[in-house]
Amino acid sequence: MSKGRIFSGMQPSGKFHLGNYLGALENWVKLQYDYDCVFSIVDWHALTSMYEDTSKIPENIHEMALDWLSGGLDPERNIIFVQSHVKEHAELHLLLSMMTPLSWLERVPSYKDKLQQLGAIGKEINTYGFLGYPELQTADIILYKADTVPVGEDQIPHVELAREIVRRFNGFYGPVFPEPQVRLSQAAVLPGIDGRKMSKSYGNEIPYAAPPEELKARVRMMVTDPQRVKKTDPGDPAVCTVYTFHKLFNKEVIEDIGGKCRTACIGCVDCKKLLAERMSASLADIHARRATLEANPGRVKEILAFGAERARKVAAATMEEVRAAMRL
Amino acid sequence: MSKGRIFSGMQPSGKFHLGNYLGALENWVKLQYDYDCVFSIVDWHALTSMYEDTSKIPENIHEMALDWLSGGLDPERNIIFVQSHVKEHAELHLLLSMMTPLSWLERVPSYKDKLQQLGAIGKEINTYGFLGYPELQTADIILYKADTVPVGEDQIPHVELAREIVRRFNGFYGPVFPEPQVRLSQAAVLPGIDGRKMSKSYGNEIPYAAPPEELKARVRMMVTDPQRVKKTDPGDPAVCTVYTFHKLFNKEVIEDIGGKCRTACIGCVDCKKLLAERMSASLADIHARRATLEANPGRVKEILAFGAERARKVAAATMEEVRAAMRL
Ligand code: SF4
Ligand code: SF4
Repeated sequence: MSKGRIFSGMQPSGKFHLGNYLGALENWVKLQYDYDCVFSIVDWHALTSMYEDTSKIPENIHEMALDWLSGGLDPERNIIFVQSHVKEHAELHLLLSMMTPLSWLERVPSYKDKLQQLGAIGKEINTYGFLGYPELQTADIILYKADTVPVGEDQIPHVELAREIVRRFNGFYGPVFPEPQVRLSQAAVLPGIDGRKMSKSYGNEIPYAAPPEELKARVRMMVTDPQRVKKTDPGDPAVCTVYTFHKLFNKEVIEDIGGKCRTACIGCVDCKKLLAERMSASLADIHARRATLEANPGRVKEILAFGAERARKVAAATMEEVRAAMRL
Repeated sequence: MSKGRIFSGMQPSGKFHLGNYLGALENWVKLQYDYDCVFSIVDWHALTSMYEDTSKIPENIHEMALDWLSGGLDPERNIIFVQSHVKEHAELHLLLSMMTPLSWLERVPSYKDKLQQLGAIGKEINTYGFLGYPELQTADIILYKADTVPVGEDQIPHVELAREIVRRFNGFYGPVFPEPQVRLSQAAVLPGIDGRKMSKSYGNEIPYAAPPEELKARVRMMVTDPQRVKKTDPGDPAVCTVYTFHKLFNKEVIEDIGGKCRTACIGCVDCKKLLAERMSASLADIHARRATLEANPGRVKEILAFGAERARKVAAATMEEVRAAMRL
């Protein structure tokens, strides 16, 4: 049996933090061995919320490529490219738009939610393109005839819509596209240093590319068990953010640390030091790869150009089929 | 002063009738001497109402090209091409969609009107693409930096919208596009043989490419002054459709005909014969050119390929500017 094909994309919204890495990229790095993967930096999607000021997009694309590559995505094994380099996404999006009932897009649950959310912080994103966001996503996926889309719970309705659009297209013009299936990713939601969900908007993030010193500083600021005031007080790891990170980065000795905390055999300062060291070690390879790539920005450009070329080949073949089916 | 640039398009909705010719094409044929013109067969637009059955589109495109060329549009003087051959229309449409408020499209007067109109005859066109129709039109126009758009009264709001979108684009990203201006075409509304507006949906049309015999037959069926029952009754040319056609095709002797009708010196049968002969003569060149082109379908393909190449060159240069301005 041939491997399934995955399409997945991320908006270039700035440097990764550790939550992004553990939430999505780490998953992709695993998937690349089991699937034929197409990963796209979807800069056109980023316009839905950034159209008023696009000045950071080029830098964000570069940073995202650095994060992906240093995180372990293999540009030979996968097709890695920037969406706007492959114009077929726009063409297919336009063709699909002609046959997609407006009501299908209006009822996507994330649509009104996000409008409200961003409207509340004064961002005006109620554009024609924002309404068409899931339409463009559909084009992204089916342009590569992906049969599998790794998504979180909140994105399931988008894949559902893609399936509906595929059925409609195939019904009108013949069986061109497979119906993409959801592959639910059970991504851990990583807390930030204040214990809330890690997010740049909270300022509680740990940068993915943070060098050891910065990592140490961020870990030092992490909230611990608030009941543990003195070093001699026993702690409760269950309510400690540091412990949550130990669970992820220090699995081997997690019971030992829990026990020592509960019996006050280790102080929080030392516990944090242990964690920071462990995290530095575990991210060392990533940092080393990032440093190498950062020193050679031309290489990243080359990799993205190579990916775009490969993506274009697949996309062009699909569009040939689409045009033939639609008699265009 | 350099000539202004015109963009205009028509949907390939089947063979022309005389009303289409006198309503739009004849005007274009004049404009080609005063402007730098880009004329497009907008097949993507045709999808808004034809997406359920696209099988006739290729033939319709060919017929429209025949009509345009035989009508006198010069493929050297003008850029004549098929919209879907120039992918940049889709790309610019997508980029514009990201910054166009949804409400701007929803309030275009023709939008709700047409929805109702077509809904009434059971056509379901309430798609995402139909809502975006004027957005795609804007992309069509500004991709060639057209400063002038020849339109009828009903299309003025579309050009207004294009101007608004241009102002918004230029405001965000810098002055890339000129604001297109309306050039109102005072096209005569041609009656059909039953006296109502000429339209295929009424079945009252005279085909533009009708050979002399067919032309004669259609003219014979034209409604005349209903009060004139016998040949000896005096007629009233003002209420006669035949007379309306004489005014267009037989200007030189129009007073003579009117007088003879009012004094019952000419019968309707002879009057119609006169008209049919005059029309055949005046359309003879067109028919001859059409016959030559029909005998050589490869030539039409070549002309459209040549036009697409020229269009693409202009479009690609504009998109370079757009991408640079938007930092993409
Ligand atoms: S010792 Fe470690 S696990 Fe226990 S409260 Fe302090 S930081 Fe948290
Ligand atoms: S004579 Fe001519 S103009 Fe007069 S009613 Fe008959 S067809 Fe019409």
